[in-house]
Amino acid sequence: MTATNAYAHLEDRFRRIANVQGALAVLHWDSAAVMPPGGAAARGEQIATLSVIAHDLLTAGDMADLLAAAGSVPLDPWQQANLHEMSRVWRHATAVPQALVEVIARQSHETELVWRTARGADDFKSLAPKLQSLLDLVRQVAASKAASFDLDPYDALLDEYEPGGRAARIDVLFGELQSFLPELRGQVLERQASRGAPLPQPGPFPVEAQRALADRILDVLQFDRAHGRLDVSHHPFTGGVPDDVRITTRYATSDFTRSLMGVIHETGHAQYERGLPSSWRGQPVGNARGMAMHESQSLLFEMQACRSLEFIDFLAPLVREAFGRDGEAFTAANLRLVYHRVQPGLIRVDADEVTYPSHVILRYRLERAMIAGDLKVADLPGAWNDGMEELLGVRPPDDADGCMQDIHWPGGSFGYFPTYTMGAMAAAQLFAAAKAADPAILPSIGQGDFKPLLAWLRRNVHEKGSNGTTDEILTQATGMPLGVAAFKTHLEARYLG
Amino acid sequence: MTATNAYAHLEDRFRRIANVQGALAVLHWDSAAVMPPGGAAARGEQIATLSVIAHDLLTAGDMADLLAAAGSVPLDPWQQANLHEMSRVWRHATAVPQALVEVIARQSHETELVWRTARGADDFKSLAPKLQSLLDLVRQVAASKAASFDLDPYDALLDEYEPGGRAARIDVLFGELQSFLPELRGQVLERQASRGAPLPQPGPFPVEAQRALADRILDVLQFDRAHGRLDVSHHPFTGGVPDDVRITTRYATSDFTRSLMGVIHETGHAQYERGLPSSWRGQPVGNARGMAMHESQSLLFEMQACRSLEFIDFLAPLVREAFGRDGEAFTAANLRLVYHRVQPGLIRVDADEVTYPSHVILRYRLERAMIAGDLKVADLPGAWNDGMEELLGVRPPDDADGCMQDIHWPGGSFGYFPTYTMGAMAAAQLFAAAKAADPAILPSIGQGDFKPLLAWLRRNVHEKGSNGTTDEILTQATGMPLGVAAFKTHLEARYLG
Repeated sequence: MTATNAYAHLEDRFRRIANVQGALAVLHWDSAAVMPPGGAAARGEQIATLSVIAHDLLTAGDMADLLAAAGSVPLDPWQQANLHEMSRVWRHATAVPQALVEVIARQSHETELVWRTARGADDFKSLAPKLQSLLDLVRQVAASKAASFDLDPYDALLDEYEPGGRAARIDVLFGELQSFLPELRGQVLERQASRGAPLPQPGPFPVEAQRALADRILDVLQFDRAHGRLDVSHHPFTGGVPDDVRITTRYATSDFTRSLMGVIHETGHAQYERGLPSSWRGQPVGNARGMAMHESQSLLFEMQACRSLEFIDFLAPLVREAFGRDGEAFTAANLRLVYHRVQPGLIRVDADEVTYPSHVILRYRLERAMIAGDLKVADLPGAWNDGMEELLGVRPPDDADGCMQDIHWPGGSFGYFPTYTMGAMAAAQLFAAAKAADPAILPSIGQGDFKPLLAWLRRNVHEKGSNGTTDEILTQATGMPLGVAAFKTHLEARYLG
Repeated sequence: MTATNAYAHLEDRFRRIANVQGALAVLHWDSAAVMPPGGAAARGEQIATLSVIAHDLLTAGDMADLLAAAGSVPLDPWQQANLHEMSRVWRHATAVPQALVEVIARQSHETELVWRTARGADDFKSLAPKLQSLLDLVRQVAASKAASFDLDPYDALLDEYEPGGRAARIDVLFGELQSFLPELRGQVLERQASRGAPLPQPGPFPVEAQRALADRILDVLQFDRAHGRLDVSHHPFTGGVPDDVRITTRYATSDFTRSLMGVIHETGHAQYERGLPSSWRGQPVGNARGMAMHESQSLLFEMQACRSLEFIDFLAPLVREAFGRDGEAFTAANLRLVYHRVQPGLIRVDADEVTYPSHVILRYRLERAMIAGDLKVADLPGAWNDGMEELLGVRPPDDADGCMQDIHWPGGSFGYFPTYTMGAMAAAQLFAAAKAADPAILPSIGQGDFKPLLAWLRRNVHEKGSNGTTDEILTQATGMPLGVAAFKTHLEARYLG
């Protein structure tokens, strides 16, 4: 086989892998959105079988030779980037012994099940031994990957979610955040207190009316229904494949504001997937760059564009119309108070954008310590509660709303959390650059026209796929690698301006 | 590897194959019921990749040895039947050269696409060359399978849909049907003319009300929503897997009667799948016996149980309530006239149970002649129209409502049609046996209680899976192999009684 053939052969192999993964994405969406409960066992078997098939295709015995042969002839820049991503994905898959992969899959599944019950019962004691066993296995994975990639163990885990992400870099970024966030938060809270709380918006807000409003907003956000759907699931997510993006939300009749922003958030994820380079479908270079960039797109839509004064002014009449409501509580001014409310709290997923980074910094500290072997699971509740007090000034009354609130660790995901705040920073940086590059973007958003923004994102982010690192894509788009400055400017302008 | 290990290894292999096929079933359901149109290309790739994977697993190089080794040690009767089915499925998959499998998959897909357009335009000329090429390929497949199975070519095709089905047997059965059907039809039409037509039931019947009525009937039919769903698709079908059965229908606001019986028909299919032996999930012996038995279950629900006088009396008040309608047109008496109407027509899927067999007999004759090489595609319209005139006394005015009306041939399915009428005969035979075995069955149906019927079907049909031939299962359940007598008795009782 010639080296050129080797590359073509790899593209074919990865296309097949992508097709299996695409099928898995449909199976996962179906499980969450439409599957009757009695289908769970059969579905679990289908997913397990397809996962093994995808893994077998990826780790086939001839891959090392194919990757080596493909690299020995000239390829164009996209092909080079594709080959680089193929190698990265393959190395992550082969760095860990197959036996360990299977053990950890079972242990994650089991720990997650225990967590569901334990969280509801605020029973950390029953979770702790399972979670410690899982952590021990994750540390073995981290050690295997660290050896294979010549990285620090935590970095080796982080690299899977955020390719090229390194703790040393995050330490600097999060340190810069910490240098101003506590003071900024204090100022915001003071100022907010002087302004008073938003007026309550009493429900009920019928699900059908919320759905109709969501449909209207999807149109505004240029969500392409020929290539996507909106459905309901318990945990909102974005799934499917780039040409068939499935987003979900959950409606509460007592409050329309969370589901509405939830739909906008998922639409940001969906637009990223949808805008990935169409000629590289099914190839690793055609995939999203990483979780930081993915979160930047959802937060750019949710936090930057759609919590802007301009968009809220556009939104308020739609809300009044959707629910047939009126009065002070449904003015743009009150909606702004709702959507710009800052309140240190216990729960990450309920946090505003000022306090959210503190939740992430806590988790980042703790998971680094756990992976380093410096923190035992048994000592997690104390460390968590002390950290919450230090970082957010609140102390959880129990573990259910403390160190047991997130699925990530019981699910085996360590090294994921920092990408949320890296995404928030990237969102601010990208939105500032977009507005500077095209002054029509923000006024258009105020008219409900997202075409200019979307055009800029397509060109500068989405269509890059994985051709370049997160920092390379950000530098091309904004003139600089990931930094804190734009995020700080954004928070000051919105909350202290 | 010991022979016992070989059998265990085969069970494991077939479980994996079933998981891939289960995933394919979800992908197909999704395509028909919920997929946005822009997802079609990616879905096609996913389905193609998984189909190849399933085929590769089934035709792997070690299968012949495994099947041989597994047969050399004692197995219990279910295991023996399972091994028998494994061999059958494997022989069908390996009898045809891989290159031919791929060529015919492409040609079927292409011909089906041409058919969609050509049918709409009544343009048989543009379909004919494609269909002839496809027929040539199907004849090659038939020849390959005939050699491998030592069967007549048509039988070799039929065997895939109806294991053990043989044209010689069908000739006898259909000959018996023809010996009384024309005369019976004449008598029925005469009698019907003297009674007058049913009163029209003017719409509109809102989709929501039809859906609510369908939900009510699903409950009556013991459809288990923990293990199934009802959705909408252009062509109604039953899909999914036994623990997660997905049925679909299509609502027309001008007429509720077709969708209602459509849902009942698919529920019969669904109950069969759902009742397959649960300890043999994922094994060939745990699958439905064949298409004749499958159709017998849908027709037993639709034609035998739910067009009975007893059920129509139960149904009529539900219809009146569902649509808030009253008057003569919505009495049980009028609903009976609607559901027992006999009318020779052009279209098979619109046909009543008296004229339906004639549609099938025509197709059976023609496809046998085509496979034998005695009928060219170019001569199909003439043969079709002559056959319609002979068998049904009507002559199609065009090919769209003539020989182009069905998807089967353009989709590459030859040997499928006879199973519809074999199913109708089996349904009559099984229902008669069920009523004789448990006299509570029919009165219970009149009360909307399907538990006695379902219990009998579970025990005598569903739980048999593929353990035994169609005739063995029928003989155990009814005392005799498939025959015409019960069907004849049923038609005479309902239409001349």
